[in-house]
Amino acid sequence: MKKLIKDRQQFLSDMLDGLKVANPELDVIEDTVVVRKDKKQNGVALVSGGGSGHEPAHAGYVAQGMLDAAVCGEVFTSPTPDKILEAIRAVHTGDGVLLIVKNYAGDVMNFEMAQEMAEMEDIQVETVIVRDDIAISTPEQRRGVAGTVLIHKYAGFLSEKGVPLTEIKEKVELMMSEIKTIGMALTPPMVPTTGQYGFDIDDNEMEIGIGIHGEKGLHREAIQPVDQIVSTLVEELDKEISGEEFIVMVNGMGGTPLSELNIVTKYLKDLFDKKHYGVKHWYVGDFMTSLDMQGFSITLVPANEEWLTAFLAPTTSRYFNS
Amino acid sequence: MKKLIKDRQQFLSDMLDGLKVANPELDVIEDTVVVRKDKKQNGVALVSGGGSGHEPAHAGYVAQGMLDAAVCGEVFTSPTPDKILEAIRAVHTGDGVLLIVKNYAGDVMNFEMAQEMAEMEDIQVETVIVRDDIAISTPEQRRGVAGTVLIHKYAGFLSEKGVPLTEIKEKVELMMSEIKTIGMALTPPMVPTTGQYGFDIDDNEMEIGIGIHGEKGLHREAIQPVDQIVSTLVEELDKEISGEEFIVMVNGMGGTPLSELNIVTKYLKDLFDKKHYGVKHWYVGDFMTSLDMQGFSITLVPANEEWLTAFLAPTTSRYFNS
Repeated sequence: MKKLIKDRQQFLSDMLDGLKVANPELDVIEDTVVVRKDKKQNGVALVSGGGSGHEPAHAGYVAQGMLDAAVCGEVFTSPTPDKILEAIRAVHTGDGVLLIVKNYAGDVMNFEMAQEMAEMEDIQVETVIVRDDIAISTPEQRRGVAGTVLIHKYAGFLSEKGVPLTEIKEKVELMMSEIKTIGMALTPPMVPTTGQYGFDIDDNEMEIGIGIHGEKGLHREAIQPVDQIVSTLVEELDKEISGEEFIVMVNGMGGTPLSELNIVTKYLKDLFDKKHYGVKHWYVGDFMTSLDMQGFSITLVPANEEWLTAFLAPTTSRYFNS
Repeated sequence: MKKLIKDRQQFLSDMLDGLKVANPELDVIEDTVVVRKDKKQNGVALVSGGGSGHEPAHAGYVAQGMLDAAVCGEVFTSPTPDKILEAIRAVHTGDGVLLIVKNYAGDVMNFEMAQEMAEMEDIQVETVIVRDDIAISTPEQRRGVAGTVLIHKYAGFLSEKGVPLTEIKEKVELMMSEIKTIGMALTPPMVPTTGQYGFDIDDNEMEIGIGIHGEKGLHREAIQPVDQIVSTLVEELDKEISGEEFIVMVNGMGGTPLSELNIVTKYLKDLFDKKHYGVKHWYVGDFMTSLDMQGFSITLVPANEEWLTAFLAPTTSRYFNS
């Protein structure tokens, strides 16, 4: 297995050790919970997390203006309720806690249990379930993918402004219902904890509509030139969006070089110009990855003035470069 | 070939088109020269460049506090002297121009010709050749690799402070002589313009001492656990460095996930602790890549107070996250 690791069992703990070295403003408690050393004293605390393998998500977004804690499960495995509870306890300020959870069965169940346990300790907790991946046709079953990072940013902005918990939940859910993402992959991720590829794929094939856990996509087809790929993905997005002004995220899956993400961006811009869609801001880079998978996703958000302001507001996260 | 491209002949132009979309503060002139729209009015102008395939280098460092122009050749191919001359003409302010050139024969020759042509137009030009890759034993033959990015930052800092050209050259060369880098690869880059891998390598092998153009390394050996790999690289660095306090860059080669770069960082920190080496600042991420190669390099700079101040000074480059 071609991986820069010492022991597959230590992947998570070694990674978090390194994260702390590279980001001295972060701390790790309970082996799996990443928090800010400079704990927020007032306002709604924001907790996210899930299985690891999506770096810089979510730990890289623990920063002023974004998250207060990220609970890091093993690779592609939900963190347990007790760890999530520890995160809630560590960061709550008395003004309530918002859990931002990607829609995967294990995550939803474990975060929900943690919420119940925290409420028994009289901590006010609300949850937002992110379902931005339109590759799944039934909205309730949609997975949470790259759009989750924009949710972190918006919720962080609202919390910094002192907006109360129930209002943040309401506002974030409104944005959530408007964020749409779809992704594709050229290669599967190699999962370091198992030594197995997420799926098998031929040298001339690609997957359309992949998730971020090595799941197969909606369908498989022969590799097309990138303008064709972009067009296929936008055709799916077009069924879901309204309006003609967007904020766009072109997200790399971990193994895609920046040169190719820029090429994707060029053809997406060309297509949008043809469709007379405007773009108020572009995010291009690795925000929500799937280990070393090669591929990308496109996320669209309507260019609502408040959301744009929230996205462009400062954060100390070095991984969210506005 | 598994690449997100339209046409291998358009790789460079498509990539630069996308770069402009993602970075509206940048412009591209003469098809290959990336400049700041907000041109610097005073002080020494800084020009770098070379073959493409090292993104975000160099175009991503065209920003306040770093470069004024990056001349982008085709993939792994030097830009021509006329394009370099156009870059010099476009950004010089009357206070002279510093060329920052990685030590590769084609780059050195073409930047030198451009310098001569610019001098015939009465533009004062000086050149710094970066040779930080200690995989080559003869210092004059060493290649310029990830350390080049720190040179960009230091020179940009000095230029912003109004330091004159000859003094910037002197100071930058002093730092250059102290920057040491060595890298390794698990996989070769796939070169999109040729459809060929940079080198062939078995599933259980790695290359130690690679360059950033798909060259083979110093030697090949069986893959080791990452702590062993780090130890092998530091053993080479130890022959070159003095002092016990450093600024460290752990640079990904383009296809390496952040999780693994963080694991490298953990074991490098452990080893440094054992050796009683201190680290004043860590840079961990993709700074100078080789397309989609999986691997990393370690760069060490003595933790001189002025250099640290320069590295931590603000820049508007979203790719240099201090």
